[in-house]
Amino acid sequence: MALIVHKYGGTSVGSVERIKNVARRLEKWHRAGHQLVVVVSAMSGETNRLISLAKEVQSSPDARELDVVASTGEQVTVALLAMALIERGLKAKSYTGPQVHVLTDSAFNKARILRIDEKRIRADLNGGTIVVVAGFQGADEHGNITTLGRGGSDTSAVALAAALAADECLIYTDVDGVYTTDPRIVPEARRLHRITFEEMLEMASLGSKVLQLRSVEFAGKYKVPLRVLSSMTDAGIPLDEEATSGTLITFEENIQMEKAVISGVAFTRDEAKITLTRVPDRPGIAYQILGPIADANLDVDMIVQNISVDGTTDFSFTVHRNEYEKALGVLESKVMNHIGAKEIVGDPKIAKVSIVGIGMRSHVGIASLMFKTLAEEGINMQMISTSEIKISVVVEDKYLELAVRALHKAFGLEQVSA
Amino acid sequence: MALIVHKYGGTSVGSVERIKNVARRLEKWHRAGHQLVVVVSAMSGETNRLISLAKEVQSSPDARELDVVASTGEQVTVALLAMALIERGLKAKSYTGPQVHVLTDSAFNKARILRIDEKRIRADLNGGTIVVVAGFQGADEHGNITTLGRGGSDTSAVALAAALAADECLIYTDVDGVYTTDPRIVPEARRLHRITFEEMLEMASLGSKVLQLRSVEFAGKYKVPLRVLSSMTDAGIPLDEEATSGTLITFEENIQMEKAVISGVAFTRDEAKITLTRVPDRPGIAYQILGPIADANLDVDMIVQNISVDGTTDFSFTVHRNEYEKALGVLESKVMNHIGAKEIVGDPKIAKVSIVGIGMRSHVGIASLMFKTLAEEGINMQMISTSEIKISVVVEDKYLELAVRALHKAFGLEQVSA
Repeated sequence: MALIVHKYGGTSVGSVERIKNVARRLEKWHRAGHQLVVVVSAMSGETNRLISLAKEVQSSPDARELDVVASTGEQVTVALLAMALIERGLKAKSYTGPQVHVLTDSAFNKARILRIDEKRIRADLNGGTIVVVAGFQGADEHGNITTLGRGGSDTSAVALAAALAADECLIYTDVDGVYTTDPRIVPEARRLHRITFEEMLEMASLGSKVLQLRSVEFAGKYKVPLRVLSSMTDAGIPLDEEATSGTLITFEENIQMEKAVISGVAFTRDEAKITLTRVPDRPGIAYQILGPIADANLDVDMIVQNISVDGTTDFSFTVHRNEYEKALGVLESKVMNHIGAKEIVGDPKIAKVSIVGIGMRSHVGIASLMFKTLAEEGINMQMISTSEIKISVVVEDKYLELAVRALHKAFGLEQVSA
Repeated sequence: MALIVHKYGGTSVGSVERIKNVARRLEKWHRAGHQLVVVVSAMSGETNRLISLAKEVQSSPDARELDVVASTGEQVTVALLAMALIERGLKAKSYTGPQVHVLTDSAFNKARILRIDEKRIRADLNGGTIVVVAGFQGADEHGNITTLGRGGSDTSAVALAAALAADECLIYTDVDGVYTTDPRIVPEARRLHRITFEEMLEMASLGSKVLQLRSVEFAGKYKVPLRVLSSMTDAGIPLDEEATSGTLITFEENIQMEKAVISGVAFTRDEAKITLTRVPDRPGIAYQILGPIADANLDVDMIVQNISVDGTTDFSFTVHRNEYEKALGVLESKVMNHIGAKEIVGDPKIAKVSIVGIGMRSHVGIASLMFKTLAEEGINMQMISTSEIKISVVVEDKYLELAVRALHKAFGLEQVSA
């Protein structure tokens, strides 16, 4: 018998029929003798409907009140799922986040979980009850309702798994796992059976949007084994088959020695790059450039600064293409004159391609193979940035697919059994 | 400065536009210096939508889980109203029932309020905040979400007013007060400026469905002055005018000496009467008859039993016309043979007409004027039942309107200033 946390997203509980299907799946796990905690999101579309209603009243809704409205979406789903389980003759109970004391900070709309008091849940589990908990929500120390922000149900599930020291946290979603790259670009892309938390973090931030980033950080921190798997399979497939499907996100030491050096090729489309040339190379200059950008609520992705020559340097960064013009405007009005850069140059048509792999830490020659591969395809690299387990390059956006395919092949990702 | 509780029903908050209108009304009261607690229902139609959704999952929904779903309707409204108030530059905060510790028993779907901890609300009020509380809901001692049943928001408002020792509890609704009888039947029907709790209880139970019965009991018990008034007036009318509109439900000692003897003529259509003849007159016989009726979930209204002659008596009661056949079936299969009655006779086409008035306690001749009035119209009374402040008679249903009009006129209800 194991204690397992299941999590089902909005699509997986998007209709009464799908909720009943989730109940069928849970019954299978329950009959196999497992203790189950289930975290669910709002039915798909419901959170958007609630937020639209709020915006009809107040164009920029009060943050505290918005959470009171938005949290009702999950509250409806937990009760419906509990009913579906009871209808199947099982013992089940639903709880809101505040009811099981998901304590968060008071940052409405994007709160962070501080602590979960798992006593009540454990008592129910010991009595043979399936516990259904509303994701995405909690309460602060004053009892105010808070929500964790988009995708927060993943974090709720991982936090509950951590608090309960669950054996595994299964994230059921509409994809069947994490792939070596996007199968729409590289048909040979393979589903990874395992990936480390660190690799997953790099993959997630680069566009493999399977899991909310914060939930992966959380799982890594509390060493919660996390599995991403499909909720679209027949609920009746054998439990052994289901329990080993998808992608397991786990610790480095669990991964076999023959693990591939590179786990995947990630990419981001629709980026734009901006460079300030001949920036004086003095302390605080990066903050003087990026401070006004952040104040304007623009997200910056890559940042590259090379060594200085003659006391000046070139400072480059990338933003989403939709925010390119706005970023240029901020730099021109609030930055250029203050810091005395020579000029602003930019390109709104670039893409970022990255290779990610925990194995590259101990393998030399990874970067040179990447660069050689791109050179052989005639692709120029405009910016390069590296971390311990990732190398990212900026290329002209028309080369994106070619670059991804070439790298996927060069690192043998279609063959290696991970 | 007074502490006032306002309550707005589902129709009054049925759209974003109406919610904004409620906010305008509240601003007027706030600017006049009053402390305000506002209780709101779910937007009209929302509770039915949620219950239908639950029934799609489970035809007879689990009671605990149904309350988890149903309580979200009010949770959405409180936040929207708080936003509308904040948008007008006022300080406002929404709370669910559990958040302000509306403690109830554990009778899901029809819980009763046991206690309210008003400390948090009072702190907000003292800080100049308008407090918006979800009606219809609370939590039991284990923290389970409960609802009070249909119309429960009235009870929430009165309970909050009692806990806070509010100066008045204003129930805003889509009618403008309590009338001497239904104006659709008697055009001369007058709005009562005042009525006692006891009279209101008798009126409410007889079909003047302005307020939930339990809320009136509660208000009477805790001596909360209650006012029923219209939410459909222009929010901009002078506060003095609004504050004295509608009908005040209050204590007997507050009512002027010249108070009319009778306050109103109430009635119920669509009743059916059933009589068991020659029932043995022995202890426990009423329970033997009505027990099986109650077990079949049939509501009984009037019950009449006269003195026995030769050891047997006739036992009559009324039920809703829709339940007449079912009640007959229960009596035939489960009662007749056990108790040894002679026969069952019934009439599915009757109506009940009642006169109500606290003044009849000290005035003789009320009953005789009623009976004389009906006799003059040639209306036969089939059953008669009296309480301290009410006399009810059963008549053939075709005489209902005639009886109501004649009684309204005979007791001078169109003239008296109450």
